[in-house]
Amino acid sequence: MEKDVRIIEVKRSIFENNDKDAERLRAELKEKRVFLLNLMSSPGSGKTTTLLALARALEGRIKMGVMEADIDSAVDAEKMAEAGVKSIQIHTGGMCHLDADMTRQGLYEFGMEDAELIVLENVGNLVCPAEFDTGAVKNMTILSVPEGDDKPLKYPLMYEKCDLLVVNKTDVLPYFDFDRKKVEEYAKRRNPDIEILYISAKTGEGIGELADWIVEQARAWRA
Amino acid sequence: MEKDVRIIEVKRSIFENNDKDAERLRAELKEKRVFLLNLMSSPGSGKTTTLLALARALEGRIKMGVMEADIDSAVDAEKMAEAGVKSIQIHTGGMCHLDADMTRQGLYEFGMEDAELIVLENVGNLVCPAEFDTGAVKNMTILSVPEGDDKPLKYPLMYEKCDLLVVNKTDVLPYFDFDRKKVEEYAKRRNPDIEILYISAKTGEGIGELADWIVEQARAWRA
Repeated sequence: MEKDVRIIEVKRSIFENNDKDAERLRAELKEKRVFLLNLMSSPGSGKTTTLLALARALEGRIKMGVMEADIDSAVDAEKMAEAGVKSIQIHTGGMCHLDADMTRQGLYEFGMEDAELIVLENVGNLVCPAEFDTGAVKNMTILSVPEGDDKPLKYPLMYEKCDLLVVNKTDVLPYFDFDRKKVEEYAKRRNPDIEILYISAKTGEGIGELADWIVEQARAWRA
Repeated sequence: MEKDVRIIEVKRSIFENNDKDAERLRAELKEKRVFLLNLMSSPGSGKTTTLLALARALEGRIKMGVMEADIDSAVDAEKMAEAGVKSIQIHTGGMCHLDADMTRQGLYEFGMEDAELIVLENVGNLVCPAEFDTGAVKNMTILSVPEGDDKPLKYPLMYEKCDLLVVNKTDVLPYFDFDRKKVEEYAKRRNPDIEILYISAKTGEGIGELADWIVEQARAWRA
């Protein structure tokens, strides 16, 4: 089952002040010119499929790596490795989120020397990951159409903390009651500055725009 | 926005040993002949829609009430109230789960006098709610088809703790890669005794069987 994938069991953070530790990690990323993107969502919203589509779209534009965080299994890192994307699997030891020190453990194991863009695929969870600054430069959340347009009402902090909301699975819009105007209104109520993109990781719709957004953000950070 | 819905802000538990406290609550439920069912899932898997369909199917068979737990908003309890189901909204104060004492606070506010079946709709989250015994008699989890068949691999404790796995949104099976054999194999790997039912809360498929399962469990408990 577990192919040639590196699995890291991260340890619980020893730092009391995660916010300060996250600032330290961001400073280190700045110095090393690594753009770290923290990707959060519910389980099953399509994080891994989106990253696979992005890896194709970003080829030749930016060197991308992925850290897959899960409580158990290595299915996501295996998919990445099969697609030729440099990746590691982080196991959180049952924890529902990653903090800055856990992220650092992953980054050191991954190796930051020649990375330009590293995506941290956080544990599938709309609550806890939003409460902990991982040290990432930008935060992005995926909401898939089948989950419904009311999620920003129920999970406010996630939308408050994110720079980008990506609505995924637009290919199944005809089969679900999902109101684009409503989701935009609810998300902006939590965070007026949030940017919103629509994609279908399955068909590739909107992946080009998402790739452009990431390249633009990474360029600004690494300048 | 917030119609005629009772909203309870529960307080963090003062009990150190949640497992013991959950046992105490279960004993009280037994004495009062109330069947408490803890319903867990990812955000957007269809918990509320399933409960609305169940309310119709259970009418005249058992007196059902619902406690909706969310971090914010009252959209779920409002939907229940509109459908004529006795319900309250529990706000967790940012917490990602409910423990036994928080559940007790909800139950006392709801009133257990003439209740036969109370469903606790837990916070949408596959991680934390599985870690805390709420005092419920049975635990049930919903996995919706769009989330994918690999969830039991990634969120093992949820499937270990649940008596029943309900696979929802079977009406969209043609549009997603979802393997029934795989999900059954993965779920039973975590918990050989787990029962599995397939439903579409939208079309009503399988709701009768689910209603029968609940009535049967409630009857055994209240005997």
